[in-house]
Amino acid sequence: MKKNRNGKNGKKKVVVIGGGTGTFTVLTGLKKYPLKLSAVVSMADDGGSTGVLRDELGVLPPGDIRQCLVALSTSNLLMRTLISYRFSEGRLAGHSFGNLLLSALEKITGSFDEAVSKASEILRLEGQVIPVTLKKVILAARLSSGKIIRKQNVIHTSNLQGLRKLFLEPKPKANPKAIEAISKADAVVIGPGDLYSSILPNLLVSGIPEAIKKTKAKKIYVCNLMTKECHTDKFKVEDYVKNIESRVGPLDRIIYNSVHPPASLLKRYARAGEELVRAGGKLSPERFRGGDLISRKFPKRKTGDALQRNLVRHNPDRLAKLIAQILEEKF
Amino acid sequence: MKKNRNGKNGKKKVVVIGGGTGTFTVLTGLKKYPLKLSAVVSMADDGGSTGVLRDELGVLPPGDIRQCLVALSTSNLLMRTLISYRFSEGRLAGHSFGNLLLSALEKITGSFDEAVSKASEILRLEGQVIPVTLKKVILAARLSSGKIIRKQNVIHTSNLQGLRKLFLEPKPKANPKAIEAISKADAVVIGPGDLYSSILPNLLVSGIPEAIKKTKAKKIYVCNLMTKECHTDKFKVEDYVKNIESRVGPLDRIIYNSVHPPASLLKRYARAGEELVRAGGKLSPERFRGGDLISRKFPKRKTGDALQRNLVRHNPDRLAKLIAQILEEKF
Repeated sequence: MKKNRNGKNGKKKVVVIGGGTGTFTVLTGLKKYPLKLSAVVSMADDGGSTGVLRDELGVLPPGDIRQCLVALSTSNLLMRTLISYRFSEGRLAGHSFGNLLLSALEKITGSFDEAVSKASEILRLEGQVIPVTLKKVILAARLSSGKIIRKQNVIHTSNLQGLRKLFLEPKPKANPKAIEAISKADAVVIGPGDLYSSILPNLLVSGIPEAIKKTKAKKIYVCNLMTKECHTDKFKVEDYVKNIESRVGPLDRIIYNSVHPPASLLKRYARAGEELVRAGGKLSPERFRGGDLISRKFPKRKTGDALQRNLVRHNPDRLAKLIAQILEEKF
Repeated sequence: MKKNRNGKNGKKKVVVIGGGTGTFTVLTGLKKYPLKLSAVVSMADDGGSTGVLRDELGVLPPGDIRQCLVALSTSNLLMRTLISYRFSEGRLAGHSFGNLLLSALEKITGSFDEAVSKASEILRLEGQVIPVTLKKVILAARLSSGKIIRKQNVIHTSNLQGLRKLFLEPKPKANPKAIEAISKADAVVIGPGDLYSSILPNLLVSGIPEAIKKTKAKKIYVCNLMTKECHTDKFKVEDYVKNIESRVGPLDRIIYNSVHPPASLLKRYARAGEELVRAGGKLSPERFRGGDLISRKFPKRKTGDALQRNLVRHNPDRLAKLIAQILEEKF
């Protein structure tokens, strides 16, 4: 194996930035490679079980962290199933066990950072899960009408046409561990994930875009498979890239899905208002790496889960293979 | 060390029968000795967090099992603190994390027995915790008036004067693991604990009194420190013994507190209607082992705990020492 830029133990350091299912998929694929993985995770989630815990216990949002912990855990299947288990009855309905674990640990230790670190021990983590900030924040969107929409779970289902500005209230400072991981990385992988509710909430944290601009790491963006209704309608691959680059500067490589799946699959997957993300024009094959990235596995709907989740998913293995190829390239 | 009757690895097998805080205390004291410990635990609990989980999730009662798991866990302090942690806010208020763990594991594995076994792995148990039965049961009390009081948490706070019969509905069969542990034991330790709501719910399970009568194990009873108002008013040590022996036959040794603590301590401890349990007459020192068994540590009231708990506690070390002495005696 080639030496990495820090050249210590031969394992390249990869930082994945995001939060939701997309990040889970990237981590699940990449963990099969001899890499040192970190996940920098959005702290703007306030829906479902996470929202209830934020409101009722005053804790930081555990949901996205939990998913990344499960992805990087080397514990047995039962332990990972337990962490993902969602109660479906009574007053516990909707809560995932892993969320309760993180919230209980935060209450006991008095620190979310400590809670994540203790949960990482319990789950025998290979890699590191890093909250992008340790401040309590609310995601907000200002539209051209002047109207401000607050809370991620409201924004997630709101019409964002005429979006002027997306921001966090109050504007938080980055977790120093996130800055450090980005600075020392061999590669930073941004996405996939909902642009406004999963990806940008990381890039709106003070210090994060600066660290990405500054790092010598390869900068890779994984473009979404589908547009999101009233958020990214008609977005082409280039539109996503332009949006991200306006915040973090030039991206080295963009991974996108270049294959139109069979109509039968699309029909199964189809949800009102969503369309496959396509290239707008001819994409330079040097920077833009297309591939057949759509998973043929149809995700099961879990009982008790109050959130509507995207049904079109990346295939973790094919996505990871493309990222691994880019890691081996010299540039 | 003397060989035990099964003579395998030099560790004597001790089975502790009960459920609540009393059993936790015995286990906490005995775990410092080189013994093979098992706890046979009542399944009649239906109050507090346990009651809510039984009602809302349809699970078996986790609370008493949880306490015994914590007592026998060799995990680090944080893990044991986590299992005992009780949420104090919102809709989770009153639930202990360990109860949620056991209930989630029961839902995932489909079996409470399996849930206890998996939780034992997670908590690195030294010893074994055995639900006395795997059937769903309700504790019931018939009074001389003909009135029947149902549910342990109601019985716990009801006036049981004129009690005719205490029983479980429906009458359950014992967990085969409980029968096996009792049969192979070198000693069986019954109590301490509330007579009607912690101890007898074990002895009302079909197969348990028979197994205790039949086993060659030393039969030790640890008498309570305090009477319980409207349950065991005016009970002397001999009254407790008579009650237990009417169900399981002759006891070999009875451990009781023979020391009147300083008035200042009693005053701190005092709760309306409770009195120190005393000997009624002269007790044979061969069978009855008195000692100064009252803990001087005043237990803290935990936030969020809805149950009223006894404040007079056994000192685990002094209690264990007496039990260990009896284990070494030849008879």
